[in-house]
Parts: sequence; C-alpha cells; structure tokens
Amino acid sequence: MARRAASLQPTIFTAMTDLANRHRAINLGQGFPDFAAGEAIKRSAVRAIKQDCNQYAPSNGQPQLREAIAAKMSRQYGLQFDPGSQIAVTVGATEALFAALFSLLDPGDEVVLFEPCYDSYRPAISMAGGVSRPLTLRPPDWHVDRDELERLISPRTRLLLLNSPQNPIGKVFNREELRAIAELCVRHDVIAVTDEVYEHILFEGEHIPLATLPGMADRTLTISSLAKTFSVTGWKVGWAAGPADLVEALLRVKQFITFCGAAPLQTAAAEALAVGEDFYQRLKEDYRQRRDFLCELLADVGLPPLTPQGTYFVCVDIGALGRGNDIAFCRDLTERVGVAAIPVSPFCSNPDDGRDLVRFAFCKSRPVLEEAAKRLRAGA
Amino acid sequence: MARRAASLQPTIFTAMTDLANRHRAINLGQGFPDFAAGEAIKRSAVRAIKQDCNQYAPSNGQPQLREAIAAKMSRQYGLQFDPGSQIAVTVGATEALFAALFSLLDPGDEVVLFEPCYDSYRPAISMAGGVSRPLTLRPPDWHVDRDELERLISPRTRLLLLNSPQNPIGKVFNREELRAIAELCVRHDVIAVTDEVYEHILFEGEHIPLATLPGMADRTLTISSLAKTFSVTGWKVGWAAGPADLVEALLRVKQFITFCGAAPLQTAAAEALAVGEDFYQRLKEDYRQRRDFLCELLADVGLPPLTPQGTYFVCVDIGALGRGNDIAFCRDLTERVGVAAIPVSPFCSNPDDGRDLVRFAFCKSRPVLEEAAKRLRAGA
Ligand SMILES: CSCCC(=O)C(=O)O
Ligand SMILES: CSCCC(=O)C(=O)O
Repeated sequence: MARRAASLQPTIFTAMTDLANRHRAINLGQGFPDFAAGEAIKRSAVRAIKQDCNQYAPSNGQPQLREAIAAKMSRQYGLQFDPGSQIAVTVGATEALFAALFSLLDPGDEVVLFEPCYDSYRPAISMAGGVSRPLTLRPPDWHVDRDELERLISPRTRLLLLNSPQNPIGKVFNREELRAIAELCVRHDVIAVTDEVYEHILFEGEHIPLATLPGMADRTLTISSLAKTFSVTGWKVGWAAGPADLVEALLRVKQFITFCGAAPLQTAAAEALAVGEDFYQRLKEDYRQRRDFLCELLADVGLPPLTPQGTYFVCVDIGALGRGNDIAFCRDLTERVGVAAIPVSPFCSNPDDGRDLVRFAFCKSRPVLEEAAKRLRAGA
Repeated sequence: MARRAASLQPTIFTAMTDLANRHRAINLGQGFPDFAAGEAIKRSAVRAIKQDCNQYAPSNGQPQLREAIAAKMSRQYGLQFDPGSQIAVTVGATEALFAALFSLLDPGDEVVLFEPCYDSYRPAISMAGGVSRPLTLRPPDWHVDRDELERLISPRTRLLLLNSPQNPIGKVFNREELRAIAELCVRHDVIAVTDEVYEHILFEGEHIPLATLPGMADRTLTISSLAKTFSVTGWKVGWAAGPADLVEALLRVKQFITFCGAAPLQTAAAEALAVGEDFYQRLKEDYRQRRDFLCELLADVGLPPLTPQGTYFVCVDIGALGRGNDIAFCRDLTERVGVAAIPVSPFCSNPDDGRDLVRFAFCKSRPVLEEAAKRLRAGA
C-alpha cells in the first residue's frame, strides 16, 4: 500500500452504516433519503435506458445536461455559463471536488476551509499534495470571524473551500459572511471551490452562491449535484461550473479518473432539471417538516438540537449535557437504543473540536422518524 | 492549473469523436457499440430504478454484485474471491485502474507495461507519481521477449500492468508469455494489475487471467467491467478483485474519489452476470463476424489488417503502405473519406512507435459497417 493510502481510514459513513446494520438500528447516520425519488425523474431514467442511451457520455457530460445546468444557474441565480466550456458533469459532487483539488493544487499549496467539514475534503486535499488550513466554527451560531479567517491566508493559499449550506452543522452562510469571504479571495488572489449540494434544502432566506458576489464569477468553481435535490444519492450525477480555465483543468484529470459517469442517468438529470420553481418550494417545505419533527423530538428526549438553517442534518451539543465523547455516544446510541447517528470529531482536523457534537439525519420517511422517536424516548 | 493538469491533453477519443461529428463521419474511432444492449439487462436496470434502488451503494459496491462477480470468477476461471474483502466495485475499469495505481504507487515507483497501451495508463501512472517503463510490442505478431522484459525491471519496479486482450493492438497474451511474466513478477516481487475488460471478446482459445498462473493469485489485482461484455459502455460499472490488502488500499482512495458508482446499474449488473455460458459464446461468434467483415473490407481497399486475436479493434499498418503518419492519415480519412479511425501514436510513450498504425473499431452495427465499406471503397 502506498503511503497516501495507508494514511486514509474508511469513511465514518461506512463504519456507522455497518454498525447500524449489525444492530438493526434506525439509521439516522448516513445522509440518504429512505423514501422514493419522484416518479417523473424515474420515468426519465427508464426511458433513457429503454431508448438505448447506454454508451459513453462525452467526458465533460451529455450536451443536453450541460445545457440544463446552465439554464438552471441562469434562471435561479443569474449566473451565466457556456455549456460548451464552462460546465463539467462529474460522478457526483465528490468526484468534482476531488478532480478540482487534484487539478488546481500543486504540492504544498494551501486550502482554507471551514470545519467541521464533510469528511472527504481533507483526504482529497492531502491526496492532491495540498495542506488544509481550517477555520473552526463553533456552536451555537457558527459565526465566521473575518480577521481570524484572514490570518489563515498565506502566500501559499491557492484555494478556499466553502460548503453552504454546510454539512454537518447545518449552517447557511449569510450575505455579510459571504461578502467578507469574497473580499478576501479577491484581495489575496484566492480561487474558491464551493460545494452547494444542499442549495435547495434550506429553511430561511435564499441560497446565495459565492460566485454571485462581486469579483467572484471569474474565480469560483461552483459544485453541486442531483443527489439531494432529487432524492437520488445513488445516481452520482454531479457537476462543476465556472471559468473555462478551471473547468478545463478539472476535465484534464477527470478524463483519466472515470472518463464519464452513468449516461442514462445524465439524460434523466437533464429532464429533471427542467422542473419549475414549485418543485423546489415543495422540497423546502417537506424538509422543514422533517426538521421540525426531529428537532422537537430531540428537545423532548433531552438532546437539545442546534436547529439547522439548511441541509438535512441536525447536530446535538452533547457537551452541554456533560456526555462529552461523540464516538462513545454514537456507539452506545446505536447498540443500546437502536438509533444510529454520526460523531462529528471525524469532520475536524483536531478531533477535540467535534467531541461534543453528534449529527442526526432527517432525510427519512415519517414512519422511520417515528420509530426513532419511540426508541429515543425509551432509551436516550 | 496545477502542473499535473497542465501536462495532460484531452484524450484522443474526445478529439476524434469531435472531428467525426463535425464531418458527419462514420465513427470507427471511439470503441463503443452502436447497437442496443440486451433486453434482459435493460429490464433489470428499469426494475431497479422503479423499485427505488436509487440511493448510495456501499463504497465497495452492492453485496449482490460483489457476490455475482465472485461467482463468475470462480465459475469461469476457478479463481476464488471473498466478496466481503476481495472485490471492489468501481466507476468502470478506468476508476479501478486509477485508484489501484494511486493507492499502490509511491512517488518514483516504476510500472512495467506493454505498448501501444490504452491511453489512460500513462497519465494515471504519472498522476500517482509513478514512472512508466514500457516494453514496445511490434507488428505483425506483437511478441513479448522475456529478456527484454526482465531488463525493464529495477529495484524500483512496484507494478506490472497487463491488458489482455490488449487495446489497441488486439493481442491476446498466450500461456507461454503469461508464464514468463508471472515468473518475473514472482522473482522480482512485483505486483500485477490486469485490465481484462475484453475477456469475452477473443477469437482463438480461451482467456487466461494472469491471476491463475502459479504464484500470481496473491499478487494480482484483476480489473474488468460490464461495458464490453454487455454492450453498456455508458453504465460505468467496473470492478477489481484480488488479495484483501490490495483491494483495501484501492478502496481507501476510491471512497474519497467517487464514494460509489450508479446504484441501480449495480443491481442490474448483478443480475446480468448470472447469464449462462451460451451468452458468452454468442458474443464471441457475433464479434468474430464483425471482425471478419471489417478485416476483409480493409484488405479489399488496400489497407491490410493486422488481424486481431481479441478486442473489438483492428489495426492497419499504414507504414507498410508508405503512408507513415497516423495522425495525418486519420484526419484525412475522417475529413475526405468520412470514416473516423484512431491514430496509435497517442498510445505510445515514444509517438514514433505508433506512427505507422491506425486503429479501426468493429463494435458497430452491420449497416454502419456497410456504409463505412462504401465510403472506404470510394475514397481510401
Ligand atoms: C457518501 S456517504 C455520505 C452521505 C452524506 O453526504 C452524509 O451523510 O454526510
Ligand atoms: C473512454 S473512451 C475510449 C473507449 C475505448 O475503450 C477505446 O476506444 O479504446
């Protein structure tokens, strides 16, 4: 095994889902909807397969999908992208992120990011030879301090990585914070890579892509995916949109990593992205109800929630309860109570920053959330 | 753009397919079937989507697919793999290869391989920090000289990369060659990574996985995919099978590259792999007819074919015709004659080794091959 592989551990999602399955626990750990995707998007995929859309897509993605992504970005955010040169379809946002980092970082380049962050970020940075420079956000309000952020920037800073809404903490960066981030990127000539996969799952205000801030359009690679918005986490259709030079860099490495993703699901994705605004409104409303149900339940059983502004996750501050070890807490909850959650320390460079936090997913059907409620009331 | 991205060019398949489309040429370049996949496998995929198999697969692949792969390897080759620890499902063979190289090579490690080779090999090796040590095979018989091979092995040699049947040259390594390769791997403690995606498209004898040779089972990572065997190049369902430590290394990096591939297509793949031997026999017979049709045509129009033993490609030695520049030849054939083929120099470390070779794909429907025949007869 090469040194770079030896330094990596299996993801916390794999570990916790295995543990949940072994104990027949209700899985509020790994974030995937347990309810069906929409009939329309499934029909589109079925049609694509029947109509023999089963051979390689172009490495940068099917033209109709790149056009649909450009149309969506224009309609919803006023961002203009040329589908020919400024959009790349990827195997989920995960590949987009890996390929972006791998194509933009030279060894020793630094990446500023906000922790606790999604667990692939730091390994992907280190596999590219880069160095993470984390700003730790703290509950209850996960505030970004502009000066603290600027102190992390050095002459070696190449990228800033932003995830808004942010997994696992449910934070939505507000306009003031985004403005400070944009100003620092422009001032220090830093490129932004944004993971916006929860762009349509937020409960207050509107999603603001960092690329819409002054000076950012030509220095931001905006990454998103179909997974969360259309409840198809297993389709692995993601994308990156940005200036042609950044997209070209990404594609040069991506072509030799996977060449392309699943072609029939790209066809279906293009059709899905033509939905009207009411689809996104219903999605928000639906997730708001699931959030409120889980948050009320957690409060009720003595696990006070840090109510999220976005994502389909909610964190509980177990430190405030004097229960302080997230991993032991999650193991106990899975084994004894039969409800799996995710410890937050694996999302932090310094595990101590996550020791007090446990994440629950509410992208689950009502009966599952109710069974979780029953178990938590009995045992938490 | 990072140095590693700047050093990569768009694949020759993308370039030639673009050129073919611009000139409405018959595309005998990029290797993908233009005919429909089987009804049974399409029905399986449709069922998986309708039955809501649309969320993340495990990062190492759905259990039923890993079991189906293990059963296939046992039935067809007598190779035994534990589906739990010795098989990883990947986003096509391309990701399997990238992740294998990336997880097994430390910077400066050397990889022995046989050229002309598939175009992702050398970029994938160099992205992992490795160094290619190519043995150039030469027409008409592409013979492997054992001593020449041994001279390429050094104390830094970590891997040997074998593609049999070999794209683009159509060579099938015979038992004697495989025995020599295996002996060298064992003697010099070299790990083998094999790309066997054309395992069922060969015209003489049987496919012999390198892993079946003495001493190789515990030092070979065997890579294959659904693409060529089931005419679904756009599904991107591949796999790697081998000793648990090699598979684990691959999975540690793979989880942060794509996490998993398209889940409903994995379900369909598991069902597809249960087909009986007659399916593979029919596939071989079908491709033999396409091969013979194209080879006779090429001979007929003065482009004498180097008849392939396997793969769905045939090379023509244009050097023997005194036409000696593969890239100019392919451009002319596409623009003037309306038939696209692939130059072989991009498959060689030293482009001069491929200057005399042009590759035609015969994974095309009869009407398309006949239209190509008409055009070649009129203009070649
Ligand atoms: C790829 S498994 C992780 C799913 C997810 O996004 C999460 O649970 O945070
Ligand atoms: C991924 S495009 C290349 C297809 C192929 O295998 C070939 O033409 O050699």
